[in-house]
Amino acid sequence: MAEKFTRFQPSGSKATSRPGATLLELAQEAGVSIESVCGGSGKCGKCRVVPSSGADRLSAINDDERRNLSTEEVDSGLRLACQAHVVSEGDMVVAVPEGSRRGHHRLLESGIEPSIALSPAVSKVLLNIPPATLADIRADDDRLIDMLNAEASVIANITPGVHRRMPHALREKSWEATATLYMNEELIGVDPGDTTSDLLGAALDVGTTKIVAYLVDLTNGRTVGTESRANPQIPFGEDVMSRITYCAKNQDGLEKLQKSVIDAINSLIDRLCANTERSPDDILEVVMVGNTAMHHIFFGIPPTHLASAPYAPAVRRPLSVGSNHLGIDIYPFGRISSLPNIAGFVGGDAVAVLMASGLYDDEEIGMMIDIGTNTEIIAGNKTRLMSCSCASGPAFEGAHIKHGMRAATGAIERVWIDPSTLDVHLRTVDDAPPKGICGSGIVDAISEMFKCGIVSSSGKIVPQSNGQERIRDGSDGKPEFVLNTDEEGGGGLEVSVTQNDVQEIQLAKAAIFTGVSTLLRKLGAKCSDLSAVYAAGAFGTYVDAASAIFIGMYPDVPLERIKFIGNAAGSGARMALKSVEARKLADDLSRRVEYVELASETDFQSEFAKAMFLPHRDVNRFPTVARAAGQIVNR
Amino acid sequence: MAEKFTRFQPSGSKATSRPGATLLELAQEAGVSIESVCGGSGKCGKCRVVPSSGADRLSAINDDERRNLSTEEVDSGLRLACQAHVVSEGDMVVAVPEGSRRGHHRLLESGIEPSIALSPAVSKVLLNIPPATLADIRADDDRLIDMLNAEASVIANITPGVHRRMPHALREKSWEATATLYMNEELIGVDPGDTTSDLLGAALDVGTTKIVAYLVDLTNGRTVGTESRANPQIPFGEDVMSRITYCAKNQDGLEKLQKSVIDAINSLIDRLCANTERSPDDILEVVMVGNTAMHHIFFGIPPTHLASAPYAPAVRRPLSVGSNHLGIDIYPFGRISSLPNIAGFVGGDAVAVLMASGLYDDEEIGMMIDIGTNTEIIAGNKTRLMSCSCASGPAFEGAHIKHGMRAATGAIERVWIDPSTLDVHLRTVDDAPPKGICGSGIVDAISEMFKCGIVSSSGKIVPQSNGQERIRDGSDGKPEFVLNTDEEGGGGLEVSVTQNDVQEIQLAKAAIFTGVSTLLRKLGAKCSDLSAVYAAGAFGTYVDAASAIFIGMYPDVPLERIKFIGNAAGSGARMALKSVEARKLADDLSRRVEYVELASETDFQSEFAKAMFLPHRDVNRFPTVARAAGQIVNR
Repeated sequence: MAEKFTRFQPSGSKATSRPGATLLELAQEAGVSIESVCGGSGKCGKCRVVPSSGADRLSAINDDERRNLSTEEVDSGLRLACQAHVVSEGDMVVAVPEGSRRGHHRLLESGIEPSIALSPAVSKVLLNIPPATLADIRADDDRLIDMLNAEASVIANITPGVHRRMPHALREKSWEATATLYMNEELIGVDPGDTTSDLLGAALDVGTTKIVAYLVDLTNGRTVGTESRANPQIPFGEDVMSRITYCAKNQDGLEKLQKSVIDAINSLIDRLCANTERSPDDILEVVMVGNTAMHHIFFGIPPTHLASAPYAPAVRRPLSVGSNHLGIDIYPFGRISSLPNIAGFVGGDAVAVLMASGLYDDEEIGMMIDIGTNTEIIAGNKTRLMSCSCASGPAFEGAHIKHGMRAATGAIERVWIDPSTLDVHLRTVDDAPPKGICGSGIVDAISEMFKCGIVSSSGKIVPQSNGQERIRDGSDGKPEFVLNTDEEGGGGLEVSVTQNDVQEIQLAKAAIFTGVSTLLRKLGAKCSDLSAVYAAGAFGTYVDAASAIFIGMYPDVPLERIKFIGNAAGSGARMALKSVEARKLADDLSRRVEYVELASETDFQSEFAKAMFLPHRDVNRFPTVARAAGQIVNR
Repeated sequence: MAEKFTRFQPSGSKATSRPGATLLELAQEAGVSIESVCGGSGKCGKCRVVPSSGADRLSAINDDERRNLSTEEVDSGLRLACQAHVVSEGDMVVAVPEGSRRGHHRLLESGIEPSIALSPAVSKVLLNIPPATLADIRADDDRLIDMLNAEASVIANITPGVHRRMPHALREKSWEATATLYMNEELIGVDPGDTTSDLLGAALDVGTTKIVAYLVDLTNGRTVGTESRANPQIPFGEDVMSRITYCAKNQDGLEKLQKSVIDAINSLIDRLCANTERSPDDILEVVMVGNTAMHHIFFGIPPTHLASAPYAPAVRRPLSVGSNHLGIDIYPFGRISSLPNIAGFVGGDAVAVLMASGLYDDEEIGMMIDIGTNTEIIAGNKTRLMSCSCASGPAFEGAHIKHGMRAATGAIERVWIDPSTLDVHLRTVDDAPPKGICGSGIVDAISEMFKCGIVSSSGKIVPQSNGQERIRDGSDGKPEFVLNTDEEGGGGLEVSVTQNDVQEIQLAKAAIFTGVSTLLRKLGAKCSDLSAVYAAGAFGTYVDAASAIFIGMYPDVPLERIKFIGNAAGSGARMALKSVEARKLADDLSRRVEYVELASETDFQSEFAKAMFLPHRDVNRFPTVARAAGQIVNR
């Protein structure tokens, strides 16, 4: 998959390449929001851009840029937008990599929209049917099917219940009627007159925490609406495992969980249709993806056995059931379909991400990482694909973190610490006064603390000669680092990173990196062999890739190889909704992808223990960090 | 189909062939009940039997026998059981044709049981499944399907909902489980352990008036129970047309009618299971047959268009829906299947009868007649089959007949009139005092009245020189014939046949014979070409074939060519239940059988008018009757 860039032209109507102005300023004038945490001081290195024409009209590379960019990056034309400024007026085009855009988390719900040839499972055919006469007394079903099959369908079946509509539907508009087909082989509907323009589908990403629903016009493949809401199962258990336990321990547990998710989905569909002035009755198919537990609960399948070895799922194969089977309020004879699962903890959502990433078709080895309470990783290329699931826990969602919170208004989402003063620069969601810290913030914070020596490689918060007032003993008697004192940050709350917080993040990132390194070992590859790392999902989109590498969570690859694909599970679900070919691909992938049960790998414990270090006990695996650490030491 | 005989051996333990005893007496002693209305006086000619060994020990043919039997019949060894008596003791075997048995209406519910190779659509397979381990983490569905497909099934689908049972079912008995398959291609169930011996099916004959349900053990093909009840739709309309009207005129009409029949079927299934100590949960499939309107209502398909030209049904094709789709209380993932329809008024029940009769496979031309409010007729042979429906009305069920009643206790079911005295001999159901007259009784009565000259060929009741007291003016001022005066018949009611009754029967039999003659004309055949006439259904089983020929309702064929096949619709339904081959045959037949819309035949009116006569305006079509009429005239 080609990396996405946002381009802006400072010479356009809104921004002129006036001498003296930095690219950061010009971008802002052009309406493009570039990442920067250090206030444009050239310190945080987040505002990387690539002037693609008119680069000769910019200032020469300065020391701040050299410190923040590798030689390769400088050679490939990267600049820091806050440092590069216009020296002579003229035309100029600047490319902003996705990772440098503040707005890149708009991908969070929509995800990438991979182009795919439209071939949905549901289709409509307008028919002008020869009327029944005494000379032609064929039954309605024969009449309809004879005609459809003459037009190259192979109708083997009529959905039970559709028969009830046939007599009226055929005669209401003088034998002009629209037939609705599923997979070109089952007649799932017949309506009077021409209704071929009403052909909708919905894609669902049923996450443990959040449910996103997309409304897609299947006549042209366009996504016409997106809605999301929290998964209402959260009160029954924050994570997958506690919900499985709830099902196991309560007789009506599964039923309750299923009902809650179905109700939520119906409310999302209602909203989608109300906002777009469409009718739920025109939604002919819903394609859902979710992790295996969410999938099982959605379909009312007991997830109990997912919780104990060997964690075999009840269902791998893609399902397609009638909408009334689940009580989802779309067209009554519509279909609810799912993508196949891979294993008990690698579900259809991972298949969807894999499909959206394009990784399965690459010559070179790539990796997709979808971070959540369970982090799914798939690595490989067109010849071999391996997957695993890492118990990364809910720390990145703010749980078990002292001041942790979800990425809502006021959450600290970016942290940069000035290495010389230990002054802390923060950015919060919606630029509101700080209320707490979210996943991307805590990763940034620990990365910066490690970079500045506030945290040791083993994860210990250590006293510093300067900035002493920020390091203090917390209520648990262990040291903590204050990001935001009461005095700072306009009315916000005091937010600190505790010793325990550091350990939680170490555990989480160690879990992930153990998965990364195990899959690479099985593939006989090194981190540096990875041509691309696809960062999927909410956290993967928000988190700063450089920070994620710096703490040893992501494999150490050049930043431009890290591709943000947003809610790629939703993208994959829409691909499947729009294309039966994609569905075949998904089934094929779910069979092809090998599953590695990390816990039963002999070196799992030792790998995990080594990965607890920042970035890793074996620092050679993180050469970029090793180099930076060298700089820190030399500073 | 070979004619069925009941054999008895008067020399057996119960009956001895003692000299002087008539075969009628010996049969009764042997527990075989032979038809006789004239009290054994040799007059009614109903007690035909064939002594198959020891005939030389019987009395010589007497005048009464010669009068009642044709030369061919005498030559083929037929005797009247009331006249033939033993002259010398010794071994003897007597065959009683079905038509001579009083008990032959036991076929009414059971029908014939055609032998058919057992290949039901549902089957069970016992599996010993390799357990899930960390080395083999296949999902339950893959594990199950891989194993089934290795054993030559081609499972393409798992019934939605069955997945919910899989995890438990596989693990409960240490990975020994029984899979239930439909058509060897869909997995409709999985149970822990070995349940292969529980494999039941039910067949349903949903008639306009009566519903019959059969419970069949599909491990061996045996019918283990039969239950019947009135169709609870009767209060919504006695006949098909009035029920269709009820559906058309009442918003919830169809729903009500459907619910009533489904409830009735559930109660029958309950009774079947209670009586046989079986569980409804073990019934895996129900195969239903019914006329097209009953079929449509059963499946909730609006029957409205059946009522107006061109009477096209909504559905011809066989249906197979989930049991929960209709709310039929069998195995929740079981199937409810139907036989295909032929036309708006020739339904799956006619296909079932056709299949049970074997007519479709005959070299010679045959005909099946299923008499009801609508009478379905199918004629032809293995190369061509034609069908029609005749609006014969409810007269044979006792409606529109002054003293008409159903064939319940006290109904006059047999009538014989002594031609010389006009004395009336009656037999009633259960030999109870007469309460009214049922269909077979009224046909007998009119046949006898015609034979004795009490009714003219045009259907007029005419005064007679003897027996004058029985012919009188009725309350409508028209003549009527009294079968049973107040003085006669021990406390029974007075029952008469009115002029109007005769006309009702003329209309009904004319409708039927117009169908008979139209199909034969289309086939280029004559009545005498018919090698067999299969008389199906309740009335066809009860009615005396000779009387039916005498009034011109049945084609005039030698009596032995008339085969009683009882509730052959139920037989055909059981064939389909037991064999997918039979189901394919049914689909093939429903396509092959041509439908003739009688009312649109140009000579329909004139044929009908001619058929109003007794037996027919063109008496040459009824040579047997013509000969008998000659005897009457000569008398």
